Amino acid sequence: MLQRWKITIEYNGGAYAGWQKQDPPLRTVQGAIENAIQMFCQQEIGIFAAGRTDAGVHARGQVAHFDLDYGERPLEARDLLLALNAHLRNDDVVVTLAEKMGEDFHARFSATNKMYQYRILCRNAPPVLERGRLWASRRMLDAAAMHEAAQHLLGQHDFSSFRDAQCQAAGPVKTLDRLDVMSMPYDGQGGVEIRIEAEARSFLHHQVRNMVGTLALVGEGKWMASDVKRALEARSRMHGGPTAPAAGLYLMRVDYP
Amino acid sequence: MLQRWKITIEYNGGAYAGWQKQDPPLRTVQGAIENAIQMFCQQEIGIFAAGRTDAGVHARGQVAHFDLDYGERPLEARDLLLALNAHLRNDDVVVTLAEKMGEDFHARFSATNKMYQYRILCRNAPPVLERGRLWASRRMLDAAAMHEAAQHLLGQHDFSSFRDAQCQAAGPVKTLDRLDVMSMPYDGQGGVEIRIEAEARSFLHHQVRNMVGTLALVGEGKWMASDVKRALEARSRMHGGPTAPAAGLYLMRVDYP
Repeated sequence: MLQRWKITIEYNGGAYAGWQKQDPPLRTVQGAIENAIQMFCQQEIGIFAAGRTDAGVHARGQVAHFDLDYGERPLEARDLLLALNAHLRNDDVVVTLAEKMGEDFHARFSATNKMYQYRILCRNAPPVLERGRLWASRRMLDAAAMHEAAQHLLGQHDFSSFRDAQCQAAGPVKTLDRLDVMSMPYDGQGGVEIRIEAEARSFLHHQVRNMVGTLALVGEGKWMASDVKRALEARSRMHGGPTAPAAGLYLMRVDYP
Repeated sequence: MLQRWKITIEYNGGAYAGWQKQDPPLRTVQGAIENAIQMFCQQEIGIFAAGRTDAGVHARGQVAHFDLDYGERPLEARDLLLALNAHLRNDDVVVTLAEKMGEDFHARFSATNKMYQYRILCRNAPPVLERGRLWASRRMLDAAAMHEAAQHLLGQHDFSSFRDAQCQAAGPVKTLDRLDVMSMPYDGQGGVEIRIEAEARSFLHHQVRNMVGTLALVGEGKWMASDVKRALEARSRMHGGPTAPAAGLYLMRVDYP
C-alpha cells in the first residue's frame, strides 16, 4: 500500500548545487535524499519540495513529500527517520522529522506560509565558526532604518523589481505578510548580527535575496526608505538593489493547514 | 620600540590539535597565529594565551598577548587586525579585536574571570548546519534538574572529581562563580538546545567538560542532585561523571580589570 510521507529537512546549502536534481557530479539536496530512500527501500522514488532553494542557500525547515510502498510490514516514522539519516551520514543534509500524511498532502501546493531568515554579520573580522553561514559585512548597518524601509514592501504587490530573470512563477504579483529587520549582539565578541525575517505564501525567484540586498543599501545610508518604495513601484529589476549572497539565507519553516 | 598587543580570537577548534604549538604537521591555533605574525612582520614572535584549549574546543573570545617591535612607523590596531586576518584567510582562526596594552598586561596572569559555554542539542537527528559545533544527544535532558544540581558545585572546592589526570594546575582547589543550565528551542525545527555557562577565574584541565558530563547524568535521570554533591565531596576523578565531548565547548570570554 502506498503511504505518503512528509519529511522536514535541514541542510548546509554550501555543500550543494541547490535543491533540484541535476546530472552528476553535481551534488544536490534532492539527489542526496532520493539516493538515501533508494538505499533504504531499493526503489527509485521521486520527492517533491515545498520550494527549490538555490546553490548555497541553507534550510532548517525545508519540507518534501514522497510516496512509499513498503509492502506488508508497518513502517514507523521514527524508523524511517533513523534509516534515512543513517544513509545520509556522509552528506550535509539530515531529516529532522518524518510524518505519515493523507494522499492529498502536497509539500508545495498545500503550503500556506513560508518563513525565510537572512543573517548578516557586521564586524571587521570575517566569521570562522559560521563561515559560509552568513553574509559578512565590514560596514555597520542601521537595522532600524532597514526595518522602516522594509514595511513599504508589505502586502500584495508586483515584485518585478525584486524578481530574477530566470523566475518561472506564473506572474510577478505576490503577497508579502512580514518583513522584519532585527539587530542583536553577535554570539561571541565584537560584532552585530542583523536578522531579516520574511513570510509569505510564496516568493519569486531570488525575491528575498533581492529585497535584502536593497535593504542593505538603506542600512549603509545610501538609500532612503522612500527609494525602496520607488524601486518597488518601478516594477523593473533594473530599479531594485543588488542580490545578497546565498550564504546568509535560510528556509526556516513551511506551514500547512 | 616594543609594543605589547592584546588580541581577541575566534576559532573552530575542530580544525586544530588544540591551542598549544606542536611539531608539524599538527595544526594548532598558536602555530597558525604565530605564522601569521611572522608573515606580517618577518619576525618569529611567541604569543601567550589566557588559557590553552584542547583539540576540538572552540573559542569565540580567546585572548592572547605578544610583543612587537614595528620600528619607527606607527602601527594602528585596525591595520594589525586586517593584516593578521589576511594571513589567516586559509585558516579556521580569526582575530576579532586588537588592542595596544601596557607592558604589565598578561593574557593569562591578568585575567580575573573566564566564561565557557557548553552546547548540547537534544533531538533525534544529528546537526548538519552546526556539525562539530555541539554535542548531539538523542535523549531529552532535564535542564531544570541539571541547573539545580549544578548549584552544588558553586564556590571554593577541591574539584579533584572533575580534574583530568594530565592537569598541570598547582592544586585542585578552584572557585566556581557561576554554573547555569538553560534550555531553549533549537534554532530551526524539532530540537531543544541545552546551554551550560560556567564562570571562574580559572579552571582545572577538563573541569568544564567533566562537570557537563556529570550534569548530563542528572539530565538523563540517572543521577540526583545529591549524587553530584557526593561526587564533589569524594575528591576523586573515579567518582565524577564522564567527560563531555570537546565539540560542544566554547571559550566565550576572558575578563580583565
